Amino acid sequence: MSRFPASVWAKLMRQVLSEQSPELLKTVPYNGLFILRKAISDYLRRVRGMQVKPSQIIIGAGTEYLYSRLLQLLGGSAVAMEDPGYKKFGAIADSLKIPWVHIPIDGKGIQTKALAESGAGAVHVSPANHFPTGIVMPRQRRRELLEWAYEERERYIIEDDYDSELRYRGKILPTIYAMDRQQRVIYMNTFSKSLVPSIRISYMVLPDPLMERYRRTLSFYSCTVSSFEQCTLAKFISEGYLERHVNRQKTYYKDKRDKVIAALGRSRLMEIARICEHHTGTHFLLKVRTAMSDEEIREKAEEKDMHLELLSGYFHAPEHGTSGTIVINYASIEPDKIDQAVSTLEKIFEADIEKKD
Amino acid sequence: MSRFPASVWAKLMRQVLSEQSPELLKTVPYNGLFILRKAISDYLRRVRGMQVKPSQIIIGAGTEYLYSRLLQLLGGSAVAMEDPGYKKFGAIADSLKIPWVHIPIDGKGIQTKALAESGAGAVHVSPANHFPTGIVMPRQRRRELLEWAYEERERYIIEDDYDSELRYRGKILPTIYAMDRQQRVIYMNTFSKSLVPSIRISYMVLPDPLMERYRRTLSFYSCTVSSFEQCTLAKFISEGYLERHVNRQKTYYKDKRDKVIAALGRSRLMEIARICEHHTGTHFLLKVRTAMSDEEIREKAEEKDMHLELLSGYFHAPEHGTSGTIVINYASIEPDKIDQAVSTLEKIFEADIEKKD
Repeated sequence: MSRFPASVWAKLMRQVLSEQSPELLKTVPYNGLFILRKAISDYLRRVRGMQVKPSQIIIGAGTEYLYSRLLQLLGGSAVAMEDPGYKKFGAIADSLKIPWVHIPIDGKGIQTKALAESGAGAVHVSPANHFPTGIVMPRQRRRELLEWAYEERERYIIEDDYDSELRYRGKILPTIYAMDRQQRVIYMNTFSKSLVPSIRISYMVLPDPLMERYRRTLSFYSCTVSSFEQCTLAKFISEGYLERHVNRQKTYYKDKRDKVIAALGRSRLMEIARICEHHTGTHFLLKVRTAMSDEEIREKAEEKDMHLELLSGYFHAPEHGTSGTIVINYASIEPDKIDQAVSTLEKIFEADIEKKD
Repeated sequence: MSRFPASVWAKLMRQVLSEQSPELLKTVPYNGLFILRKAISDYLRRVRGMQVKPSQIIIGAGTEYLYSRLLQLLGGSAVAMEDPGYKKFGAIADSLKIPWVHIPIDGKGIQTKALAESGAGAVHVSPANHFPTGIVMPRQRRRELLEWAYEERERYIIEDDYDSELRYRGKILPTIYAMDRQQRVIYMNTFSKSLVPSIRISYMVLPDPLMERYRRTLSFYSCTVSSFEQCTLAKFISEGYLERHVNRQKTYYKDKRDKVIAALGRSRLMEIARICEHHTGTHFLLKVRTAMSDEEIREKAEEKDMHLELLSGYFHAPEHGTSGTIVINYASIEPDKIDQAVSTLEKIFEADIEKKD
């Protein structure tokens, strides 16, 4: 991510070094340094309107790390996840021998009826920006999810809020965490995505009772992030750099999205395709009316040295009836290569476009 | 750890920053940066006489993190650990619902007969410097352990080599890893202990077949250490700073150990106590002939505001017949407070000393 403000980061690192804080030499508390947890707590209040105490936050080296601790914390009951969805979550559960189920989504997100029937005790959702579809879960579905959680004592919603700031139209909805009145939402987010992937810092917010259980049963696991990087990030957040960076990112990605959509608009592809869910994140869906199977599309793309992600690749259920839907991830495409990429796409679907005529 | 060469570390950090290596912005490979794995591989060859390819090394944020991945990798069969021993290992296994057994040690380390009878598929040992006894496992016992591993196809020895460089008398024995001819040893070490606890970098060396299994089943877990700290540590090792630091540490701790032993020698405590296993690490045992139970000793110490670690606290088995043995950990005691600490100890055992007269 070339947008990473490396010089600011370096400046803050030098400051941390020169201040020679005694924190830098001490063992880090299992949940992370207070100054960073405080900075995150303030940030969440300011930017997301969330009431989070620093004592509810656990800092960890990446969300996968935190998901793995969280699944241990929640114990043996099955966890549910969206289908299609974030596949690693299932892999993490598998690696911990924790049962999981996949629940189909519709245009508003996870289907709460199917969730209730699944018998799961917790569910992983990304309401702000569903991957890979880009669907934003409306308020009503969020409320239904909370109702599902309230039906039983130990039901939890794991809310993955990554990239929520990247919303290009409409207001950013309040988090499910902020709507919750019964301490049933675990909130997750990461700086590896919004800053730079080589910095491994994520965090989770636990409701007080779960935090107490974590302290009792899992706090023997030492914190996985060095105090040096925690101090640097704390400065980065509390001095306002994160907000500025996030705003720049939003402009940058919106601009890139507009360029990709404009290039598609100029191509003949749009005679057989339409764009969906393009108002959040760094990806959207391109639904193509094609005679080819997804396997054939993928092969044709590879012949042309293009790696295509198809929505069908993200499903758990074997029969989902989705084909011809491409996940266009524009996060890492170079702006001057957009036209070329669109023209390659056009060639892949040449036969479909010609047949249409 | 005040011996940490903070100014060298800061200098290397600044170098890494100013070099602006593209590595710093890229996603870190799951097993860590090649330059760091190469530096560790060279270091192990030079200092420990070990043949380790960089491709066998996995970098992780702390040994607890790596142990937790390793236990997942080894699958469901029971793991054995030393009794007394590193209690966190049992806690990690518990948190992953993996069965574990404790095996008594004798003066040479873990008892291989009891190990063979336990049915465990892997065993955790710290042969270079057993915690908390300080016992060094002799060659013969190491060979017996390897024989145990070779008896079945999937038996592994987990060799924890932390603090192995802190040996004040006699030669440092080769690692079990170096003696192994059938790829049955997993080697673990950490920089958090030898450098500074706030830097969370450890590593494990896997035999090729296990590494291949890790890549296949667990490599979806992203690396937990930021590339910036990996680059800094790689420089620290390859430019020879680690060896110099370790040598200074050795002199520093040997000197401190000598001071503690000299202070004990001047006290009347030695009329009823003897010192054992004081040639490695940062701790030794003080065996006291006392009429008090360990509970009484601990209470008496607390009355005098002294926190005492007793060997009995490290046992898993309830009946181990050990009492009156104090674990003297001199790592963090200030040199000018040694005499005072010894005099407090003397007061705790006043009644025993007087009775002796």
